[in-house]
Amino acid sequence: MTDRFVISIDAMGGDHGPSVVVSGVSIAVGLLRDVPVRFLLHGDEALIAAQLNRHPAAKAVCDIRHTDKVVAMDEKPAQALRRGKGTSLWNAIEAVKAGEAQAAVSAGNTGALMAMSKLILRMAAEMDRPAIVANWPTMQGVSTVLDAGANIQCDAAQLVEFAIMGEAYHRAMHGVARPTVGLLNVGSEDQKGHEEVREAHRLLRQSNLDIDYRGFVEGNDLAKGTVDVVVTDGFTGNVALKTAEGMARFFASEMRGALTSSLLSKIGAVIASGALKKMRAKLDPSSVNGGPLLGLNGVVVKSHGGADDRGFANAIKVAANLARSQYAEEFKASMSQLSDVLVHAPIGDQPAGSEESPQ
Amino acid sequence: MTDRFVISIDAMGGDHGPSVVVSGVSIAVGLLRDVPVRFLLHGDEALIAAQLNRHPAAKAVCDIRHTDKVVAMDEKPAQALRRGKGTSLWNAIEAVKAGEAQAAVSAGNTGALMAMSKLILRMAAEMDRPAIVANWPTMQGVSTVLDAGANIQCDAAQLVEFAIMGEAYHRAMHGVARPTVGLLNVGSEDQKGHEEVREAHRLLRQSNLDIDYRGFVEGNDLAKGTVDVVVTDGFTGNVALKTAEGMARFFASEMRGALTSSLLSKIGAVIASGALKKMRAKLDPSSVNGGPLLGLNGVVVKSHGGADDRGFANAIKVAANLARSQYAEEFKASMSQLSDVLVHAPIGDQPAGSEESPQ
Repeated sequence: MTDRFVISIDAMGGDHGPSVVVSGVSIAVGLLRDVPVRFLLHGDEALIAAQLNRHPAAKAVCDIRHTDKVVAMDEKPAQALRRGKGTSLWNAIEAVKAGEAQAAVSAGNTGALMAMSKLILRMAAEMDRPAIVANWPTMQGVSTVLDAGANIQCDAAQLVEFAIMGEAYHRAMHGVARPTVGLLNVGSEDQKGHEEVREAHRLLRQSNLDIDYRGFVEGNDLAKGTVDVVVTDGFTGNVALKTAEGMARFFASEMRGALTSSLLSKIGAVIASGALKKMRAKLDPSSVNGGPLLGLNGVVVKSHGGADDRGFANAIKVAANLARSQYAEEFKASMSQLSDVLVHAPIGDQPAGSEESPQ
Repeated sequence: MTDRFVISIDAMGGDHGPSVVVSGVSIAVGLLRDVPVRFLLHGDEALIAAQLNRHPAAKAVCDIRHTDKVVAMDEKPAQALRRGKGTSLWNAIEAVKAGEAQAAVSAGNTGALMAMSKLILRMAAEMDRPAIVANWPTMQGVSTVLDAGANIQCDAAQLVEFAIMGEAYHRAMHGVARPTVGLLNVGSEDQKGHEEVREAHRLLRQSNLDIDYRGFVEGNDLAKGTVDVVVTDGFTGNVALKTAEGMARFFASEMRGALTSSLLSKIGAVIASGALKKMRAKLDPSSVNGGPLLGLNGVVVKSHGGADDRGFANAIKVAANLARSQYAEEFKASMSQLSDVLVHAPIGDQPAGSEESPQ
């Protein structure tokens, strides 16, 4: 089995469990048809087998690893951790640690996924928790935004770590030789924002880090795609991501409303429907579903709990591409630069008289 | 003049100066046709007069107050403050202080507008700076979101103040008897988020404040319109607002692209154009342009620097409605409750073992 590429999946995670997971695997098999990939499905054997019987393409490449223990979607991370051993989530990650699989995917409880990943795989960086990446659709293509919700409060050194990890990730996943990096703030001038973001800005600018750092970016730069990698703390990143998702749903609903408001607009909508469908697919979050947890010794990808089978398939594709990429090496090389930065530009050594100013 | 309703305007502010301001006043005269309103236009007399000659409806209700001093859009607030006396921005606010006008409107430098407003009118609340309101279009209508960018770091007491001010504002402006209030966070459970937001949540829930507080809301609740008033710190609020603006522009550009991608979709677009136009107008930020600065002893409204004349007219309308509403009384009554809250539930008195958890 070791000569094959294996992805380990928590089949019980997410709002829909095995039905979406197995259907997602079936779609992923098509997406990854050039890759000789197999899957380990962790969870209730009877439920999974029933779904596999409906998806022969998935059945041919899946092995079931039975467990009847699961982590509930609303279980607190600390509690999930205490009684987590042997759950489908735990076993999915454990298979990566054991070298049985090269990546793990789960649509389950995010807090538990992070806590278990950290415990089983250990952090390769100084952060509290793995940073979650959001693959953000933009006018230019797709940007890498992190942290999307794991590290609620971040100091300057953590933000610099995110910049390094995000840059390595974007390079590995999108084949961009020198991704541009920006720090999310409320304005572009040096004195804008709070202390942590100003200090990270100073470190990224003054250091000899081999990163194409472009300075501060603002909320509207996310959709514009002004930079390839947008760095922010997990609180701001989570709010921005969910705000954008909410806006996308608002637009879709308004558009439906507008195009069915009269017979004439209905006729127009039918005629233009191909183009409108293409557009909706481009903005659909599930087409970019799959947020890797960066900073771990191993590949773990979080699928949105409510994602459909297409979305879950995309999360699998992200996991496969990441595990097969040069990311781990890139990351290691970049992180070795970080200690130099923090030596050459100690934190706290700020210019005097820095002043906050709004908008 | 005192028996009339007067709005004081910085005619030199914004990216376009008097041309957009005067055209905006002309549109506002139409919007406010039932109100006997007059305008004081502060700035370069020759430039303003030239514009007024092109807009007779505005000319009939405007008085020019000449000054050749202006605040540059990129001037630092501290510097603008030092040499600010006698600028068009200063004089516009000063007229409110002097009782010559009931409200001031400016599309100028936001930092300078806040600093001068605070110096001239003084704060009526304990905050560092006035909170900026964003009028946010939602699936339900419009929500009041604050702070949209003035107070970059906020403690729990400030967030509670925003809740009180925002609630009074929403009631006064939208005639909603009992607006619902939510606190922006990364999840809905009590233990989510950072210390300030959890403490504000506790204060708002446990206090006897006469507010319909609904607990935490998330980024996607903004477009949904889950609550009438969304409270957040100025950093998060600014990023969320600009993220949404960026998404709106992204969406419009995608729609244009989709509807001109083929002859068939072009035909469909022409047929459906009325409905699509209506929809774009509803999502257009300039239709809700005009962010009041709350917490001052007096009405000051910030127009977006890049807003067009329709947008500026809307900012004037917001100022007029706010100044004519019961907001000042509502606000005063609500704020008197705040000291009770902080007495009955002293800040820092937190439950032990509160734990952060992501997403």
